[in-house]
Amino acid sequence: MTGSPDRLTRALSILDHLEPGAPERVRANLDAFHPDTAELVLGYAFADILGREGIDLRTREMMTVAMLAAMGTAQGQLEFHMRAALNVGVTREEVVEIVLQVSVYAGVPACMNAITAAREAFEAIDEG
Amino acid sequence: MTGSPDRLTRALSILDHLEPGAPERVRANLDAFHPDTAELVLGYAFADILGREGIDLRTREMMTVAMLAAMGTAQGQLEFHMRAALNVGVTREEVVEIVLQVSVYAGVPACMNAITAAREAFEAIDEG
Amino acid sequence: MTGSPDRLTRALSILDHLEPGAPERVRANLDAFHPDTAELVLGYAFADILGREGIDLRTREMMTVAMLAAMGTAQGQLEFHMRAALNVGVTREEVVEIVLQVSVYAGVPACMNAITAAREAFEAIDEG
Amino acid sequence: MTGSPDRLTRALSILDHLEPGAPERVRANLDAFHPDTAELVLGYAFADILGREGIDLRTREMMTVAMLAAMGTAQGQLEFHMRAALNVGVTREEVVEIVLQVSVYAGVPACMNAITAAREAFEAIDEG
Amino acid sequence: MTGSPDRLTRALSILDHLEPGAPERVRANLDAFHPDTAELVLGYAFADILGREGIDLRTREMMTVAMLAAMGTAQGQLEFHMRAALNVGVTREEVVEIVLQVSVYAGVPACMNAITAAREAFEAIDEG
Amino acid sequence: MTGSPDRLTRALSILDHLEPGAPERVRANLDAFHPDTAELVLGYAFADILGREGIDLRTREMMTVAMLAAMGTAQGQLEFHMRAALNVGVTREEVVEIVLQVSVYAGVPACMNAITAAREAFEAIDEG
Repeated sequence: MTGSPDRLTRALSILDHLEPGAPERVRANLDAFHPDTAELVLGYAFADILGREGIDLRTREMMTVAMLAAMGTAQGQLEFHMRAALNVGVTREEVVEIVLQVSVYAGVPACMNAITAAREAFEAIDEG
Repeated sequence: MTGSPDRLTRALSILDHLEPGAPERVRANLDAFHPDTAELVLGYAFADILGREGIDLRTREMMTVAMLAAMGTAQGQLEFHMRAALNVGVTREEVVEIVLQVSVYAGVPACMNAITAAREAFEAIDEG
Repeated sequence: MTGSPDRLTRALSILDHLEPGAPERVRANLDAFHPDTAELVLGYAFADILGREGIDLRTREMMTVAMLAAMGTAQGQLEFHMRAALNVGVTREEVVEIVLQVSVYAGVPACMNAITAAREAFEAIDEG
Repeated sequence: MTGSPDRLTRALSILDHLEPGAPERVRANLDAFHPDTAELVLGYAFADILGREGIDLRTREMMTVAMLAAMGTAQGQLEFHMRAALNVGVTREEVVEIVLQVSVYAGVPACMNAITAAREAFEAIDEG
Repeated sequence: MTGSPDRLTRALSILDHLEPGAPERVRANLDAFHPDTAELVLGYAFADILGREGIDLRTREMMTVAMLAAMGTAQGQLEFHMRAALNVGVTREEVVEIVLQVSVYAGVPACMNAITAAREAFEAIDEG
Repeated sequence: MTGSPDRLTRALSILDHLEPGAPERVRANLDAFHPDTAELVLGYAFADILGREGIDLRTREMMTVAMLAAMGTAQGQLEFHMRAALNVGVTREEVVEIVLQVSVYAGVPACMNAITAAREAFEAIDEG
C-alpha cells in the first residue's frame, strides 16, 4: 500500500474545497478506470502536494490556472481549475490578470483559450 | 510608433526590480538583434502586462516560475525568474512548494529541471 | 494607456483583412472578458507585430499556420488561420505543402490535425 | 516517386491490423485532402517505420499510446491508438499501467486525459 | 506523513536497478533542495507507479524513453533513461527502433535529439 | 527497401543547399547510430517532403524556423535552420520579423530563445 486510508480522504476533502461535489464525480470516473487510481493520483496531487503548507490553496490555484493555460494541453482541466480558483477566493479581476500574463509567457493563442475557459467559469458561477 | 517613449522606460524599471542590472544586459542583447525589439517585446511583457495592477509582482513571479517550469522549453529564463522571484520577496520555502506543485501538473522531469534552476538561483543569491 | 486609440483600430483592420467580419466577433468575445483585452492583445499581435513591414501578410499567415499546427495546442485558432491564409492569397496547394512540412518537424499526429483544420477551411470557403 | 506502389499497400495492411476497417476511412480522409498524402504520410509512418522488425507491433502500440498521452496534443489519435493497442493484444491491465506511468512523466492532467481516452476505447471494444 | 519509511527505500532500490549508483547522486541533489523531495517525488515515481506489477521494468523504460524523446523538454533525463533502458535489458537495436518511431509521432527534430542521447548512452556503456 | 537509392542522394543534395558541408556531418552522425537512419529520416524529411514543388525552399525555411522556435524543443536545430534560412536567401530583416512573430504565437521566452539562435547564425555567417 502506498499510503494510509486517510490519504485519499484528505485528497477528496481538498477536491471538495475546490468544487463542492467534485469528489463524487471524479472518483466515480477514476474507479471505473481502475480502483487504485483515485488513491494514487488524487493522493499524490492533493494529499501529498497541494495540501502541503507553505502556500495557501488560493495562490496554488492561481499557479495551476497559469500552468494549465500555458501548457495548452488540458482545456477541460483548465475550465475546472478556473472554477476552482474562483471557489477558493481568487477574484475575477485576478483571473483576468493571470490570463493576460499567460499571453506573455505562452503566446496569444494560449491566452485566447484561457479566455474561453475563464468566460465559461464566470458563467457557471453566475448560474450558481 | 507602438507606444510612448516611456513605455520602454517603465518596462526597464520593472525588469530592474526583478534583477538589478538586468536592463542593461537584456537591452544590449535585444538592441544587437534589432533596435525595435526592446520597446516591442519588453514593452509588451513588462509595461503592458506585468506592470498592471490587480496582482502584485511577487505573486506574478510565482506564476511565471510555475509556467516556465511546466512548459519546459526555456530553462535559461526559468533560472532568471527563479532569481527574480527571490529578489521580489518569494521565499525559498515558497519556491520549494511551487516546484513540487509543478510535478503534479507537468510531471516529474519538469519538476527535476525546476529543482536544478532553483538550486542555481539559491546559490547565486548566496554568493551575492 | 499602453498605446494610442488607433492602435486598436489598426489591429482590427488587419483582423478584418484576415477574415471579413472577424473583428466584431473577436472584439465582442474579448470585451465580454475585460475591456482592456482587445487593445492589449490584438494591439500587440496585429498592430505591433503582424502589421510590421518586412514580410507580407500572406507569408506571415503561412508561418502562423505552420506554427499553430506544429504546437498542436490551439486547434480552433489553427482553423481560423487556415481560413485567413486562404483569404489573403495562400493557395490550397500551398496549404497542402505546409501541412506536409508540419509532419517533418512536429510529427504525423500534428499533420493529421492540420489536415482536419485545412479540410474545414476548404469547405468553409467553398460554402462562401 | 518516393516509393514503390506497394509501400502504401504495406502501410494500409498494418493500419488494418491496428483497427479493421480503418484503412478505408483514413484513406478517404487523406485523399480528399491531397492524393499524395496517403502514400507519403502513411507510407512513412507504417511501411517505413512501424512495419520494421526489431520491436513487435504490440509493444510499439504501448509506446505510441504513452507518447501521445504524454504530448497531450492529439486526443483523437490517442483514442484511436488506445483501441489499436487493445486490438493488437495489449491488455486492459497494461493500458492502466501505461496511463499511470504517464502521470509520472507528463503530469496528472495528461494522465486524466488518457483515462478519458482509455475508457472510451474500453467501451468501444465492449460494444463490439 | 505521506507514506511509510520504506516507500523511499523501495523507490531508491528501483532507481539503483536503473543505474547502479544513481540513488546516492539523485538523493543528494534532492536533499540539498528540500528534505521532503526524495520521499515525495521518487516515492511517487518509483515506489507508487513504476514499481507496480503489470508491466515489467524493461518495457516501462522503453515507454519512458519514448515519452521523454517525444516531449523534448528534458534532454538530461532522456540521456539518463537511455542508459537505464540499456541497463535493464533493452537492446541497442530496440533503442534504434524506439528512436525511429519517435520521428513518426513527434517529428524529426525530436528524433535527432533522441539520437544524440542514444549515442551518448551507447558510449557511456562502452566505456563501462 | 523504402525507396530507391537516389532518394538519399536527393535528400543530401537539398541538405547541402541548406548548409554546404552539412551532408557529411549529418550523415556521419546518423550512420554511427544506425545505417538505415539517413535514408529513412533524411529521405522522408528532404526528398519526400521539403524537395516537393509548390513552395520554394526559401519560404519553407522561414516556416521551419518559425515552427522550431515556436515549439521550443530543439534549440540546436533552430540554430541550424537559422543559418540554413540565411543560406537560401532569407534576409536578416526577415529573420527579425519571424522572430518577433514567434512572440505572438508562442510567447516571449520562445522569442528570446529564437533571438539567441538568430544572433549566433548572424555571427556564424559574418565569420564566413
